[in-house]
Amino acid sequence: MTVWLPDWLRHYRQEWLAGDVSAGVLVALLLVPQGLAYALVAGLPPQVGLYASLLPLLLYALLGRSHAQSVGPMAVTSLLVAASLAKLGLGSAGDYLLAAIWLALLSGAMLLLFGLLRLGFLADVLSEPVLAGFTAASALLIVLSQLGPLAGFRATGASLPAIVDNLWLHAGNYSQPALLLGLPALLLLWWARSGLPRLLHAWRLHGLLLAILSRGLPMLVLAGSMLLVAWLGWQGQLPQVGRIPAGLPAISLPALPASGLAALVLPAFFIALINYVQSLSVAQLLAIPRRETVDPDRELLALGACNLGAGLCGGFPVTGGLTRSIVNAEAGANTQLASLITMAMIAALLAWGSGLLASLPLSVLAATIMAAVAPQVRLQPLLQAWRADRSDAIAFAVTFLLVLWLGVDSGIIAGVVISLAAWLMKSSRPHMAELGLLPGGSHFRNVQRYPQCQTLPGVLILRIDESLYFGNARHVRDALLARLAAERQVHTLLLVMSAVNRVDVTALAMLQRLDETLAERGIRLQLAEVKGPVWDVMLGAGLAERFTGRVHLSTYAGWQALTPAPDFHI
Amino acid sequence: MTVWLPDWLRHYRQEWLAGDVSAGVLVALLLVPQGLAYALVAGLPPQVGLYASLLPLLLYALLGRSHAQSVGPMAVTSLLVAASLAKLGLGSAGDYLLAAIWLALLSGAMLLLFGLLRLGFLADVLSEPVLAGFTAASALLIVLSQLGPLAGFRATGASLPAIVDNLWLHAGNYSQPALLLGLPALLLLWWARSGLPRLLHAWRLHGLLLAILSRGLPMLVLAGSMLLVAWLGWQGQLPQVGRIPAGLPAISLPALPASGLAALVLPAFFIALINYVQSLSVAQLLAIPRRETVDPDRELLALGACNLGAGLCGGFPVTGGLTRSIVNAEAGANTQLASLITMAMIAALLAWGSGLLASLPLSVLAATIMAAVAPQVRLQPLLQAWRADRSDAIAFAVTFLLVLWLGVDSGIIAGVVISLAAWLMKSSRPHMAELGLLPGGSHFRNVQRYPQCQTLPGVLILRIDESLYFGNARHVRDALLARLAAERQVHTLLLVMSAVNRVDVTALAMLQRLDETLAERGIRLQLAEVKGPVWDVMLGAGLAERFTGRVHLSTYAGWQALTPAPDFHI
Repeated sequence: MTVWLPDWLRHYRQEWLAGDVSAGVLVALLLVPQGLAYALVAGLPPQVGLYASLLPLLLYALLGRSHAQSVGPMAVTSLLVAASLAKLGLGSAGDYLLAAIWLALLSGAMLLLFGLLRLGFLADVLSEPVLAGFTAASALLIVLSQLGPLAGFRATGASLPAIVDNLWLHAGNYSQPALLLGLPALLLLWWARSGLPRLLHAWRLHGLLLAILSRGLPMLVLAGSMLLVAWLGWQGQLPQVGRIPAGLPAISLPALPASGLAALVLPAFFIALINYVQSLSVAQLLAIPRRETVDPDRELLALGACNLGAGLCGGFPVTGGLTRSIVNAEAGANTQLASLITMAMIAALLAWGSGLLASLPLSVLAATIMAAVAPQVRLQPLLQAWRADRSDAIAFAVTFLLVLWLGVDSGIIAGVVISLAAWLMKSSRPHMAELGLLPGGSHFRNVQRYPQCQTLPGVLILRIDESLYFGNARHVRDALLARLAAERQVHTLLLVMSAVNRVDVTALAMLQRLDETLAERGIRLQLAEVKGPVWDVMLGAGLAERFTGRVHLSTYAGWQALTPAPDFHI
Repeated sequence: MTVWLPDWLRHYRQEWLAGDVSAGVLVALLLVPQGLAYALVAGLPPQVGLYASLLPLLLYALLGRSHAQSVGPMAVTSLLVAASLAKLGLGSAGDYLLAAIWLALLSGAMLLLFGLLRLGFLADVLSEPVLAGFTAASALLIVLSQLGPLAGFRATGASLPAIVDNLWLHAGNYSQPALLLGLPALLLLWWARSGLPRLLHAWRLHGLLLAILSRGLPMLVLAGSMLLVAWLGWQGQLPQVGRIPAGLPAISLPALPASGLAALVLPAFFIALINYVQSLSVAQLLAIPRRETVDPDRELLALGACNLGAGLCGGFPVTGGLTRSIVNAEAGANTQLASLITMAMIAALLAWGSGLLASLPLSVLAATIMAAVAPQVRLQPLLQAWRADRSDAIAFAVTFLLVLWLGVDSGIIAGVVISLAAWLMKSSRPHMAELGLLPGGSHFRNVQRYPQCQTLPGVLILRIDESLYFGNARHVRDALLARLAAERQVHTLLLVMSAVNRVDVTALAMLQRLDETLAERGIRLQLAEVKGPVWDVMLGAGLAERFTGRVHLSTYAGWQALTPAPDFHI
């Protein structure tokens, strides 16, 4: 009997074990505070974040291809869940939890479906500047939203105005014990980002101990704060995690949510999209040093299964986390066995240790979120984009501001629209260059960049630097006619089509009408360097016959055909 | 004192007068039934269609540039108004009318704003197949929706299911007199499209009489039906237009609608978009034989003013009508004076003759709509698109079906999304060609189309036939890496960038990472024929320095540099 096993397990080598074990332990130390904290960001009970770290880790280990991808709750996803559910106006906490679980199930089902339909290219609807703007603004929202819990009151609001409102309203209700624990924890964690590695290095610590001290610090801070609460007798004087149901979650299909499924479809789609983009980027980043390529459709399937699994064990949507996955890889994870060890540790905590977490102060959890997320508020991409391409910089800035102002859910829609609109606007006003022959050869160049180029009297050679389609057909025709109206002595227009990669039906109709208009005015329209695919489309539309005899293989062939024969009478 | 006057008026020539007068009269004969009928399509009292034909004609004559454009109520616009207002659930007929007037005011204000912002390219978000599918489906919906009024009961529904429901529900309530007048009128008008011109030609009629008989036939049919109603004593036995308020409408800013303005903003935007695309196409069609070009921004301003005017005199949204404008041009309109004459005739009818219209049977009006709109149910573009470009054909079919099923308002959104998505999907999977040197020259061609091409051992020359951007950067990288993995002996990859018209920040980051990955694997990445604008962006991003010395002016220069020096030892 042959059992289906993932590749890494079938060919497992003993020497991989040490790395996998240490990485698995380390990621568990990181995942426990993250899971608890991100569940709170999503407005859910803290244990939901741990539930969402069980089946997904197992399913990715079985189905995923990335060796160190660590799937689980993530900050931006949690904020998206909070923003989506806030709009539904769900009455009870139970309804809210059910809706969050169904968001995981629906987005999982969508991802699976997209994977089966091989829609991996969906990740490409977000341009990098838009994604960077989205991530930076989301991170800033998360940091600001945690100011409330840091001071001992509830976080609400998923947009800047709502968060500021909330802070304004509750600022008077701050809890001294919460701040006295939270603020030092925040400062310690913040300092640890740069100071701790140097200190540990100076102390000549290395190996696993160094890793546990530097990477496990959030866990150590949480443990320390619980000891302090007990020692100072502050139990019950500040917001704490409280009693967590003991034991592992049951695996079951939950009851339908009060809001109905239809209201969750669109939010689930955007959560699926963001989670997929996030997880695919992590997988690709991890694949580079190992010289592997990532199959986007396979990632869709694996992530879809993970989210279905998260929902079935009562968790909320999950994705591959960048920080966790890098920690996993750096700590020596060789295979997905590391993730299975992480899962086993979290299961053990839930089964036997959940009582330990009850006294955990929420303000210290808030401090771990703020310290983890703050480095993602990066504005450097804005500067980089500004130097390369203004419109990309504008896309970043607009997405950033819209996410802050409207919240992550509207922001992501705006981001997709801005990405596409910016690109289409650029293609709607194509660059056109007048060409001339470089002396002593058969090459043609832009006469404005190479003034030494020769031209033929009465012949205008124009290169259109864009595919022709409905978005620019009208503009190209108007620009050509305006150009010809300005240069009245032209009798032949030679269009160089080397940069026209595709034409659509709208552009074909434009070319035909342009030819008719020019013929009426006594101007010949000729084409050069028409690409194979473009010519095929012209053949299909019956336009090719019309141009027979007027299409040149190269611009130089056109030049030679259009050069007047030498007059032998002189 | 110099008064501002439009060009055509300042340079008016006496010989233009005869054509302008006959065209103005003829268009009035066409516009009266159309105005009444399209108001009914929009669910409004019939006189609203005449009100919408007053100020807009004057304003276009003053501000517009097209000599024969005839602005007024149009079929598709009316259907859009009906579909948009149906969703608002407005209680009274007065609220419904107010909302329709505000749709005209809002879409007028938007068009003016777009014109001031020079957003004329907005017309280009709809590809021709999508627009054709939209128009054909809308026309079919209008024809079907008029089956009810033809049989003497009310038309409701703006989508196929709603219209079929309505017919099913009321089929028993048909009115015999309505059908007895409507059906013969429909058959007569339908026959007149092909039979009448031949007949009149055989009778050797020509000039104005022929034009009035053929173009004024709808008006004659309406007049005849009113005489029949009086003669047969059917007054009150079938649905009729009823009493129309006597006199011209007052010019005033109406009260705010019951729905609030916010609910009207999105419908007004789509109405503005469709009206603008429609009116711009008409203007461009009219400009071709006169060798004029159309300024899209100017058309935006003029159409915006027309719609504000329509709203201020109690009308609904208007646009340039294709049939009317062609009739206007063919009947000899030389200037916009023709439209002023049309307006004067409609004003006269409203002022002194509105009582004449009261007995007009609605079933005959329905017949004029069906006869006018049915020719627009054209499916030929589907066949043409199928032959040229399958995805354009699919875009047509999907838009057609969605408009039928969901109605015009959702259909237009779907149309825009389909237009853009189809184009982006094509650009997300760029064509790449391996190039070789054509023997005896310096030109390179696709080795698959030209098998005689030579290649260099260890050198892979690839031409990327698409601009590089976020939508395809990932795919291009994966495709290149897969290609290189398959051909293991390659030491140099030469990318020919002649067809790469633009790169964005996402693609720049991809190029940089690709270069790093290839360097690790011992493969050199070189570029050839990088375009000026692309190189500028690479310079701005600091990527140009990285590639210094590895960019060739032409593919042939790269070929020469990569050809191994001859080994003199042998």
